[in-house]
Amino acid sequence: MSAAFIYAPAPRTPAAPPDAIAVATALAARLAATANERDRAGGHAAEQRDWIRESGLLTLSIPAQFGGQGAAWPLVYQVIRILARADSALAHVFGFHHLQLAGLQLYGSAQQQRRLLTLTVDEGLFWGNALNPLDKRVTATDSADGFILDGIKSFSSGSVGSDWLTVSAWHAPTQTALIAALPTRQPGISVQPDWDAFGQRQTDSGNVHFENVVLPAALVLQAPAQAATPQATVRSQIAQLIMANLYLGIAEGAFEAARNYTSEQAKAWFASGVAQAADDPLVQHRYGQLWLLLRPAQVLADLAARELDTVFRKGALVTAQERGLLAVAVAEAKVLSHKAGLDISSQLFELTGARSTSAQFGFDRYWRNVRVHTLHDPVDYKLRDLGRYALSGTVPEPTAYS
Amino acid sequence: MSAAFIYAPAPRTPAAPPDAIAVATALAARLAATANERDRAGGHAAEQRDWIRESGLLTLSIPAQFGGQGAAWPLVYQVIRILARADSALAHVFGFHHLQLAGLQLYGSAQQQRRLLTLTVDEGLFWGNALNPLDKRVTATDSADGFILDGIKSFSSGSVGSDWLTVSAWHAPTQTALIAALPTRQPGISVQPDWDAFGQRQTDSGNVHFENVVLPAALVLQAPAQAATPQATVRSQIAQLIMANLYLGIAEGAFEAARNYTSEQAKAWFASGVAQAADDPLVQHRYGQLWLLLRPAQVLADLAARELDTVFRKGALVTAQERGLLAVAVAEAKVLSHKAGLDISSQLFELTGARSTSAQFGFDRYWRNVRVHTLHDPVDYKLRDLGRYALSGTVPEPTAYS
Amino acid sequence: MSAAFIYAPAPRTPAAPPDAIAVATALAARLAATANERDRAGGHAAEQRDWIRESGLLTLSIPAQFGGQGAAWPLVYQVIRILARADSALAHVFGFHHLQLAGLQLYGSAQQQRRLLTLTVDEGLFWGNALNPLDKRVTATDSADGFILDGIKSFSSGSVGSDWLTVSAWHAPTQTALIAALPTRQPGISVQPDWDAFGQRQTDSGNVHFENVVLPAALVLQAPAQAATPQATVRSQIAQLIMANLYLGIAEGAFEAARNYTSEQAKAWFASGVAQAADDPLVQHRYGQLWLLLRPAQVLADLAARELDTVFRKGALVTAQERGLLAVAVAEAKVLSHKAGLDISSQLFELTGARSTSAQFGFDRYWRNVRVHTLHDPVDYKLRDLGRYALSGTVPEPTAYS
Amino acid sequence: MSAAFIYAPAPRTPAAPPDAIAVATALAARLAATANERDRAGGHAAEQRDWIRESGLLTLSIPAQFGGQGAAWPLVYQVIRILARADSALAHVFGFHHLQLAGLQLYGSAQQQRRLLTLTVDEGLFWGNALNPLDKRVTATDSADGFILDGIKSFSSGSVGSDWLTVSAWHAPTQTALIAALPTRQPGISVQPDWDAFGQRQTDSGNVHFENVVLPAALVLQAPAQAATPQATVRSQIAQLIMANLYLGIAEGAFEAARNYTSEQAKAWFASGVAQAADDPLVQHRYGQLWLLLRPAQVLADLAARELDTVFRKGALVTAQERGLLAVAVAEAKVLSHKAGLDISSQLFELTGARSTSAQFGFDRYWRNVRVHTLHDPVDYKLRDLGRYALSGTVPEPTAYS
Repeated sequence: MSAAFIYAPAPRTPAAPPDAIAVATALAARLAATANERDRAGGHAAEQRDWIRESGLLTLSIPAQFGGQGAAWPLVYQVIRILARADSALAHVFGFHHLQLAGLQLYGSAQQQRRLLTLTVDEGLFWGNALNPLDKRVTATDSADGFILDGIKSFSSGSVGSDWLTVSAWHAPTQTALIAALPTRQPGISVQPDWDAFGQRQTDSGNVHFENVVLPAALVLQAPAQAATPQATVRSQIAQLIMANLYLGIAEGAFEAARNYTSEQAKAWFASGVAQAADDPLVQHRYGQLWLLLRPAQVLADLAARELDTVFRKGALVTAQERGLLAVAVAEAKVLSHKAGLDISSQLFELTGARSTSAQFGFDRYWRNVRVHTLHDPVDYKLRDLGRYALSGTVPEPTAYS
Repeated sequence: MSAAFIYAPAPRTPAAPPDAIAVATALAARLAATANERDRAGGHAAEQRDWIRESGLLTLSIPAQFGGQGAAWPLVYQVIRILARADSALAHVFGFHHLQLAGLQLYGSAQQQRRLLTLTVDEGLFWGNALNPLDKRVTATDSADGFILDGIKSFSSGSVGSDWLTVSAWHAPTQTALIAALPTRQPGISVQPDWDAFGQRQTDSGNVHFENVVLPAALVLQAPAQAATPQATVRSQIAQLIMANLYLGIAEGAFEAARNYTSEQAKAWFASGVAQAADDPLVQHRYGQLWLLLRPAQVLADLAARELDTVFRKGALVTAQERGLLAVAVAEAKVLSHKAGLDISSQLFELTGARSTSAQFGFDRYWRNVRVHTLHDPVDYKLRDLGRYALSGTVPEPTAYS
Repeated sequence: MSAAFIYAPAPRTPAAPPDAIAVATALAARLAATANERDRAGGHAAEQRDWIRESGLLTLSIPAQFGGQGAAWPLVYQVIRILARADSALAHVFGFHHLQLAGLQLYGSAQQQRRLLTLTVDEGLFWGNALNPLDKRVTATDSADGFILDGIKSFSSGSVGSDWLTVSAWHAPTQTALIAALPTRQPGISVQPDWDAFGQRQTDSGNVHFENVVLPAALVLQAPAQAATPQATVRSQIAQLIMANLYLGIAEGAFEAARNYTSEQAKAWFASGVAQAADDPLVQHRYGQLWLLLRPAQVLADLAARELDTVFRKGALVTAQERGLLAVAVAEAKVLSHKAGLDISSQLFELTGARSTSAQFGFDRYWRNVRVHTLHDPVDYKLRDLGRYALSGTVPEPTAYS
Repeated sequence: MSAAFIYAPAPRTPAAPPDAIAVATALAARLAATANERDRAGGHAAEQRDWIRESGLLTLSIPAQFGGQGAAWPLVYQVIRILARADSALAHVFGFHHLQLAGLQLYGSAQQQRRLLTLTVDEGLFWGNALNPLDKRVTATDSADGFILDGIKSFSSGSVGSDWLTVSAWHAPTQTALIAALPTRQPGISVQPDWDAFGQRQTDSGNVHFENVVLPAALVLQAPAQAATPQATVRSQIAQLIMANLYLGIAEGAFEAARNYTSEQAKAWFASGVAQAADDPLVQHRYGQLWLLLRPAQVLADLAARELDTVFRKGALVTAQERGLLAVAVAEAKVLSHKAGLDISSQLFELTGARSTSAQFGFDRYWRNVRVHTLHDPVDYKLRDLGRYALSGTVPEPTAYS
């Protein structure tokens, strides 16, 4: 039986929350120093995950009543973005940790929330993702006290090196998926560090294998055949807005890298008639265009975060229409961030020139990271959802992606 | 001597302000009914200007202490946008009326403000623009009590049918421009209704001729050789943000027209495999793209309006840097609105089809209006200003356009 | 019985063909002089249609054996484009005249071709279009010697003022359309000059009404229930490429107008630091972008014209695959021309500025003309067809539009 | 004294040229098999360069009178493009080999051409580039029989592993650059394999160091102070069009990879309502858009190659205007290929999805290769040159880049 199940924490007075922005900024600076080299090496960033744990930011989104910092979502997203400027792979791992914590709050019973969130605070747990209701390869078979899980789950972000996982499993008798929490070290669970994409290389997005894994009923957050409430479906919006902020953090990091390079290292083109690249009107004009990709994405991501916070705080009272309008706001931010990330990370080189392609700078990692990450779900379907809404007022159908 | 000079209003208690949004919405509906037909006819819309006067909205931006409604700038811009959805020419005339009133507050002495703003409330005055410091064709010659004006001023929005004008004139001895207020019916002033652009046809943007016009010193708002304060240069930002909101209102009007047409009248393309045009994924996808032009422009225009209001309320205390950051925010909104207006007003037809080009709908007027209006100053220089800021933090140099 | 039916021309030696390019250039110059003013007036351009007739270009595409000039399609399209630079409405009427003549050659029997084409040469006939197989409102009822036509046909380009029409009519017993030629003055036919779009105002695209119209069998080009051969379906490609060349001619006309204005009249922007607008790097850069919209469209339209000519000359031997590859080439040219026309005609104003919007120049007519004309069939479905081909090699299905 | 100097070849009858397209296609297939893995490894591809040598394609552009295959430029560029589809780094090395050979023909005396080109054929020489007149760090000091070279040259494509080099060196007394040929193994020359960009990793673009290198007068192709003829300046156009064809080959390779993946491996998105990704209208639509980036670039590159061949064959008779119009044609092709390469290599992933980012496919190398290579000279200045031409007919000023 899992530790969480029997964990009965005492009521607590949380410590005064630290200044999360300052903590994140310092952590980002630390990550930035080795980001290029770790990107090339790939693999599991055990040491850096410890830095994150030590920063205290793993409790950022946990309500104060459970000993967390009780940060509102706008602050959580701000922190994700700050980390992503420096290292979007670890920022993703960090963001998805908080996604799992949000899931506990959206699906879990009051008991489960208290036990698991308090445990997370007390033991400094790092959560990983093995939840993907569309992937039916992990099955749940009924057992005496719960279920037995078998199968494999791909794209499990942050699973390598995690302490606990949120898991979905297909339950054949009801033709639905259950959702549960499990310690990663539960017997029968093994995590394969086989993620080999050309970007986001340290997201620890391995395959998780389940072999005769005991899932006690007490850790089932959403039982089979349980209809998803509007509240439960808010989880996919939290995930989508994490994506948006990761793209945006990458875009900001790329923009900053370009700006510094143009200002400090780029030479003016010989035909430009100016002494400094930064004084070239064509260079300025293109910076203006990239800026107008970045700014709207930032502003709309911030707006969506505020709206998400409002909806999240409504708990079980959130309506399908409120959830739908949130999905529109998040989709707006996500598509704009997608485009900003891709265009800025590719076009920045027009502004920095040939010498900036040296491996010593690693400026290509911005494009590689955002390119890999923006494939989570197709942007053309987000545009279709937005168009449908703009045309008829129909909000997106709640799915794992919308 | 002008009426304003001797006007000595008593202190006043303003009437409770009406709900400006509701008033504007009703006025917009009234304007919309004949907008297409008046666009074709062109010329001076005397009757419609009377409707605006009757609506009470001419006092919207006037401080309550002078009997006005004391609306904050975000509300004033909201009203401009609502009117522009229906009739962007009259919305321009309306917006520029408030620009002149803002000029009085930015340049004028306390006395001048009190007299002229109170007069505006009491007599329901409509102000027009004859202020363009770059155009030196109107000259001011020193006289006993003030100056004598001679020359011609082009692109004088709202001048036809106005009661008062704000005027700039070139003062050769100091090689600077003065700024003043004058009644349109002052002897020697004549307004030519010769605006013949293919859009914004009822903006009354005629040429104003000055022939031996007496300008008493009491009506000089900014004397020759007087250095422009940061506060004074806020005027061009008010003007720029009026532009942005006009473009945006046109974009919104065009979007709404397209949406209604697609929903109610467009036929599905025979090869689409769907029964309703609104269910075609390619139609929805394009609506999504247009929506993502519109939304960011709306959000950033609203942000800029709030920032403008803050800066405006600082009065003489506003710093060059604050004014500069406002100019950045306004430039962001203006370029996004420019692009949204042009792209939506042109692309909407991909979504409505051949029959929607009938003159009975007049849907081309959105493009014609926004195309003419977006030429006030070059968008490429706004992009250059934004790029320069993004690159080096340098705020735009204060000019009549930036 | 129609004149054409009994017309038995003698064999003939055609006159040496004039230099069609020179003739077209001179005609275009003549049309250009009044194009702006006629655009504003709208309506039927009887006098200008006479100029076209007098130019001799109505026989341009007619084979020499029938007394025509026997021009290859690349030359015909070149002439359409030259005329469209000056006056895209009359260029459309001219292009569709040749489309009807092509239809005679693709559908008609050897007898019909000889009689109708020779008659066209001898009498200087102008043909109009009343053929739209998707529109089933005109019905053909079997009669003793042919059919009786009743109903209405919309968007009939060039019908007003035409001598002969090509007509399609729905034949209920076979659930197919027949295609035929008829003199416009045949009793029972009336043409309504009710085209009221905001562009292409002089295309004479009225509604044609048929009331108990006698259609003799001898004038039926494609009988009911007759399966369309690959050869017959080449007609829609001729039509599509006429469209492309019209858009392109408009784009060229707009580009030329902008270039002349920038060179001769535009003022350098005060912040540009240059003396002439044409020396502004941002102006040059934007001209470069527009040029790269125009050039590819020109080159691919020329390529498609050559391919069309080859396919056309194969006559009945053309295969479905050859016709399909032609449709791909034409679609490429059409989409590029569509985009070039719209973008250049709208963006040119960024390069010419506010004063260029005066009605005296009429520069808005480029956008209005290309905007109306590009709605013939949806560009998004052309892109879909091209994508399908690029992805799987599947050529477009032959329809009236693809 | 260099071997070339004393080499006196007998007249020769060239062997019948092989089918270069077939040879290139086979070679490309061989390169493709290891391209992904070699891209990851980087470094010098000695074995693959031997394959190129063995293919016989190193003599492709050498005139038949010197024993080469005498291919016209369109064929040479076609071969470059075919190789670039598979391996754009080696295609670059191959293209720049022919650039050096072209330089011999444009700058060299008849004697030099005969000796060096025949030597190239006889000994299967591979040429590298150390010519960059803008980089003045290599100096030429007058000596008894020629010059002494000292200094360093960067970005020397194909220098590692080359047999001969074309070199430029700054001659201080005349303040001009000389151009010469030298065997790479000439004493004092050392090539550093220190190219470390994130793309085009096997272009062998090292730094070449010159230390007291003897340059005999007989190997000087263009002496100091010798004014560049229009013929000589054609070299930069040959180089620019090599670039364009490399970008285009990358674009074609990326397009092909995407198409195969979409057809064979991609899953339809669950919300698409279709069974195969290739049947999704949004997927087809986006393929259509990418196709319309690719096709024009291909067609205009082919046009430019034909024009280049004509100009090249004029030899010393080429005029500045002919050379200038060629530069316009090449610039058109280069900018279109630049954009096609970048957009297709980045957007292809929208069409292939998350699983296609696995390192096993190496699909990111298309973007990395084209991104690094498109920084040879700024695209914004090409656009400016094209705009200047479109606006005023002024052809680009001959430089090493235009």
